[in-house]
Amino acid sequence: MHYFEDVVLGEEIEIGRHTPSRDEIVEFARKWDPQPFHLDEEAARDSVMGGLCASSCHTYAISALINSRRSTRLKTAAMLGMEVRFPHPVRPDVELTLIELPLEKRVSKSRPGVGVVRSRTRLQSEGGPDVMWMETSFLVERRP
Amino acid sequence: MHYFEDVVLGEEIEIGRHTPSRDEIVEFARKWDPQPFHLDEEAARDSVMGGLCASSCHTYAISALINSRRSTRLKTAAMLGMEVRFPHPVRPDVELTLIELPLEKRVSKSRPGVGVVRSRTRLQSEGGPDVMWMETSFLVERRP
Repeated sequence: MHYFEDVVLGEEIEIGRHTPSRDEIVEFARKWDPQPFHLDEEAARDSVMGGLCASSCHTYAISALINSRRSTRLKTAAMLGMEVRFPHPVRPDVELTLIELPLEKRVSKSRPGVGVVRSRTRLQSEGGPDVMWMETSFLVERRP
Repeated sequence: MHYFEDVVLGEEIEIGRHTPSRDEIVEFARKWDPQPFHLDEEAARDSVMGGLCASSCHTYAISALINSRRSTRLKTAAMLGMEVRFPHPVRPDVELTLIELPLEKRVSKSRPGVGVVRSRTRLQSEGGPDVMWMETSFLVERRP
């Protein structure tokens, strides 16, 4: 477990990787976000997406999945806020890498024992652009 | 299909409802976000969440699911931006209602034929607080 004191600012950390297959993209979309460009290659080609791509919910879920496999976890007490963007589509069989950058940390004035950490997390597609940007603020426990 | 011209500002619209069961919450979390407070009632009770709750990815996916069932759809060309927050946990067997409020619309200067619509969408738990707030900006086609 990592505590507030272990967070190093300004240093990008690779959290892990995942490659969504075509089947995984279609299966997720069929269940949660059945839009043509997530389900069918031909319909997707004729759409604004220009080809099959993952639902943004799926993209976000992939970031949680990669996060769940990390070996060291931050001792968080609560999520305070989150902003997420999906600047480019997620294509089948392209490897995605989750990269975290702690931007800011400060000790809480009202709650001794915790601090606030703001981080930017991005999901980068192999040889291509970022498919997700996320900025989060967490309450993180201080080392006892 | 609804076009840019059909968007009415300042009026909340109920999009639809969904009630996630305990099984649905655990099944989603097992696959995508296996944290103790999404998987196990006892572990969840002892956590900061104070009881079993849905993964934020699951909450977001529920909003997509409700959206996919709506009868009239806006003719969108692209998502420009999104900000999402999860102010309160989603509990099992509590009905969630998706409510949309168009905040602003303007014709695109650079692209005739489309406009920009900014909306706030919230997922309200039955008899309780909002569990998700989302602000989105979309490119929307103008009526041909």
